Amino acid sequence: MNPNLENLWEEVRELSLGTTPQIERLHTPPTPLQFLRHYLSQNKPFILSASVATTLQWPATTLWTSTTYLLRALASSTVSLHLTPTGQADSLTPHPSNPNSLCFASAHVQRTSFSDAIDAINASNRSEGFVAYAQQQNDCFREEYGALAGDCDSHVSWATEAIGGLPDAVNLWIGNDLSETSFHKDHYENLYAVVTGEKHFVLLPPTDVHRMYIREYPAAKYNYSQETEEFKLELENPLRTVPWCSVNPYPLAENKEKEMSEFPLYYNGPKPFEVTVKAGEILYLPSMWFHHVRQTPDNRGLTIAVNYWYDMQFDIKYAYFNFLQSLPAPKTSQNPLTKENVRDGDEKHREESAILIERRGAWGENMMQASWIGI
Amino acid sequence: MNPNLENLWEEVRELSLGTTPQIERLHTPPTPLQFLRHYLSQNKPFILSASVATTLQWPATTLWTSTTYLLRALASSTVSLHLTPTGQADSLTPHPSNPNSLCFASAHVQRTSFSDAIDAINASNRSEGFVAYAQQQNDCFREEYGALAGDCDSHVSWATEAIGGLPDAVNLWIGNDLSETSFHKDHYENLYAVVTGEKHFVLLPPTDVHRMYIREYPAAKYNYSQETEEFKLELENPLRTVPWCSVNPYPLAENKEKEMSEFPLYYNGPKPFEVTVKAGEILYLPSMWFHHVRQTPDNRGLTIAVNYWYDMQFDIKYAYFNFLQSLPAPKTSQNPLTKENVRDGDEKHREESAILIERRGAWGENMMQASWIGI
Repeated sequence: MNPNLENLWEEVRELSLGTTPQIERLHTPPTPLQFLRHYLSQNKPFILSASVATTLQWPATTLWTSTTYLLRALASSTVSLHLTPTGQADSLTPHPSNPNSLCFASAHVQRTSFSDAIDAINASNRSEGFVAYAQQQNDCFREEYGALAGDCDSHVSWATEAIGGLPDAVNLWIGNDLSETSFHKDHYENLYAVVTGEKHFVLLPPTDVHRMYIREYPAAKYNYSQETEEFKLELENPLRTVPWCSVNPYPLAENKEKEMSEFPLYYNGPKPFEVTVKAGEILYLPSMWFHHVRQTPDNRGLTIAVNYWYDMQFDIKYAYFNFLQSLPAPKTSQNPLTKENVRDGDEKHREESAILIERRGAWGENMMQASWIGI
Repeated sequence: MNPNLENLWEEVRELSLGTTPQIERLHTPPTPLQFLRHYLSQNKPFILSASVATTLQWPATTLWTSTTYLLRALASSTVSLHLTPTGQADSLTPHPSNPNSLCFASAHVQRTSFSDAIDAINASNRSEGFVAYAQQQNDCFREEYGALAGDCDSHVSWATEAIGGLPDAVNLWIGNDLSETSFHKDHYENLYAVVTGEKHFVLLPPTDVHRMYIREYPAAKYNYSQETEEFKLELENPLRTVPWCSVNPYPLAENKEKEMSEFPLYYNGPKPFEVTVKAGEILYLPSMWFHHVRQTPDNRGLTIAVNYWYDMQFDIKYAYFNFLQSLPAPKTSQNPLTKENVRDGDEKHREESAILIERRGAWGENMMQASWIGI
C-alpha cells in the first residue's frame, strides 16, 4: 500500500473530518458565512438535525405522508419512473454475455402517470424481479413535480446566499427500501433533504479516491418489455465505457471474503463515514464526495427526498483531486477489468450481449394497460 | 518531468487562477461572502486597487509620508531592526565554512529606538555591506508600533467577518529597495497592505511546490558587532536544518544559466504570477502560496507596509498540499544539497563555521553610540 496515500487518508480525517465514522451534526441552520467558512470551503459534510427551525418550515413533511394528497396534487402529472429487476440502477451487474465480468447497468426509464408510478413502487418486489423508483436527475422536482412546489422551500436559503445563486437542479426521489444507489460522486454541492422515511449514506472524501477502485465498465441498459414482463440487459451500441466505483459497501456474506481481497484499500483503510438522514433533516454532501445510499421507508412504505444541486467551483481543490486521481492505483492481487475485457465485449454480437430477467407479478399487468410514453 | 505534475500546474491555472502572470484586480472591497466564496475558499489571490473606498480610509497613507510625523509618534518606542550585509535575510547564502554549498541565513535582530532604526535604514548601503529593515513578524504593529495604531484599520473588516475572528498578528515593515524577501510560504491568510512606496511580489500557488526545490539547509545567523562593524555568519549550535525554497527568481546574469539548469521545473514551467502592490492597495495572499518580495521606496526612500495574518484552516486543501509535497521531486541533473552535506557541516568546528563581512560606513559609528538592547 502506498504510504503517502495512507497518510493522506489519515491526515484529512485528523485535521478536518474527525476520526470517527460520524458526521458533524448542527441543531440550527448555519449562516451563509458559517456554511462557506466551515463546510463548503473545507469540503466537509454536516447534518442539519430536525428541529423547530427546520422541520416546521416544510409543509411537505406533513402533507406528503398522505399518499392521497400526493395523488390528488399530481393527478395530471407525468413522471419518470426508473425500472430495474433488483433496485440497483447505475450500478455494476454481471455482463450480459460474460457473467464473469461486470458492466454498468442503467435503469429502464419510463414516463408514466404519477398514480401508476406509485402503484409500481408499491408493487415492487425484488424476488419477483421488479423494482420501481420515481426519480430523474434533471431538475424533476421543478418540472415533473411542479404541482408540489409550494410544499418545500424552492432552495436552501443559507446555501443560496453563500454560493451566490439558486440551485442548478432540484430532484425528487420516491422509492422504498428496495432501491439502492451505488458509490459515485457528483460535481455539485448537494443539499439532500429527507421528507419522509430515512436515507442511509456511506460517505468517503475525495481524498480516498483510490479506495473506490474506479474502473472502466461497459455501459448497459435495462429494457423492460410490458408484453413479456421481462427485463433485457443490453450493452449500449456503439459500445461505451463508464468509469465507476467497484466497491459495494454491503456485499453478500458469501462474497465478502472475495471483495475484501479484491478491494483491500477500501476494507483495510479508515472506516467510511456513515449517516442516517431522517425526515426533516438535511445533509450537506460536499462536491466530489463518494456516496452510497440506501433507504428505509415510512410506515406506508415510501421514502421521499428532495435534493438541491448547486454549482460547484472548479478550483484548486478540484485540480488537486484530478492530480490525485491521475496517480496509479496501488496494485492489488486481483485482476481488474481491463480495457481488453471491454474490447472483448465489443466484438461479440449485440444479440448475445443481453440477458433476460423474467418478472412475474400482478403489477405488470396493470402496467401493460397504462398509457406509457416511451422515452 | 512528471507529466502529472505539469498537468496539475496547468489545470489550476486554467480552472481558477488564469493563464497570464496577472493577479485579479478588484476596484471595490469584496463582501465577506464574496471573499470567502471566490478567493479564500478557492485559495486564489487578488489585489484590491487603491480607490476612494480603500485609500481614503487609511490616515496612514498621508500621515506616514512624513518621517517627522513618524519620529514624533514613535519618539519613545523601541523597535526590532533586522540587520544583514546584503538586505537578504531568511534567505540562502554561501555556507560559512564551505562556500560551495549554501546555508539559510537569518538577520541579526537588534532592539533600538525608532529614530536609530530610521537612521540605519537611511544609511543602508549594500556595497558597504549593511542593510537595515525595521520589521518583526510577531504582531509588532500592535506591540512595538502601538503608537501608530490609530492610523490604520486595526483589521480588514471583510476578512475578519469572513474568517470569523480578528487577525492573529499584524506586522509593520519599514525598509527600502535593498531589502528582499526570498521565496517562502506562510501558514496564514495574509492581507498585505502597502502604505507608502511599492511592493513587488512574485507568486506561485501551493500546487507548484515541486518548482520551488525545497531542500534542507543548515540554519545560520548573522551576528553584528558594533565594535568591529562587521557581520559574522555563524551556524546555529546545535546544528539545525531548515527546509527552504532553493529558487531565486532574479538571479544575477552570470548565474542565470546555472540556475536554469539546476531548477528546470521553475524556469520551464508556467510563468509565475507577478504583482506590484502600490500605496493604498491590499493584496490578498492566500495561505500556502509561495511568495518572493522586493520593494521600491517612496520619494524619501522608504517603503512602509502593514500585513494582517489571519488563522488559516488546516483542511482538505492542506492535506492535499502535504500529500503533493510528500511525492518525490522530479530528478534534476544537478546534485542538490543532501543530508550528507548538512552533516559534514556539523562535524566542523563552530569557529570555522563563520564568515566575517566587513562593513564600513558612517552609520556604523552612530550605531555604536546608540543604546541598543541586545536580544
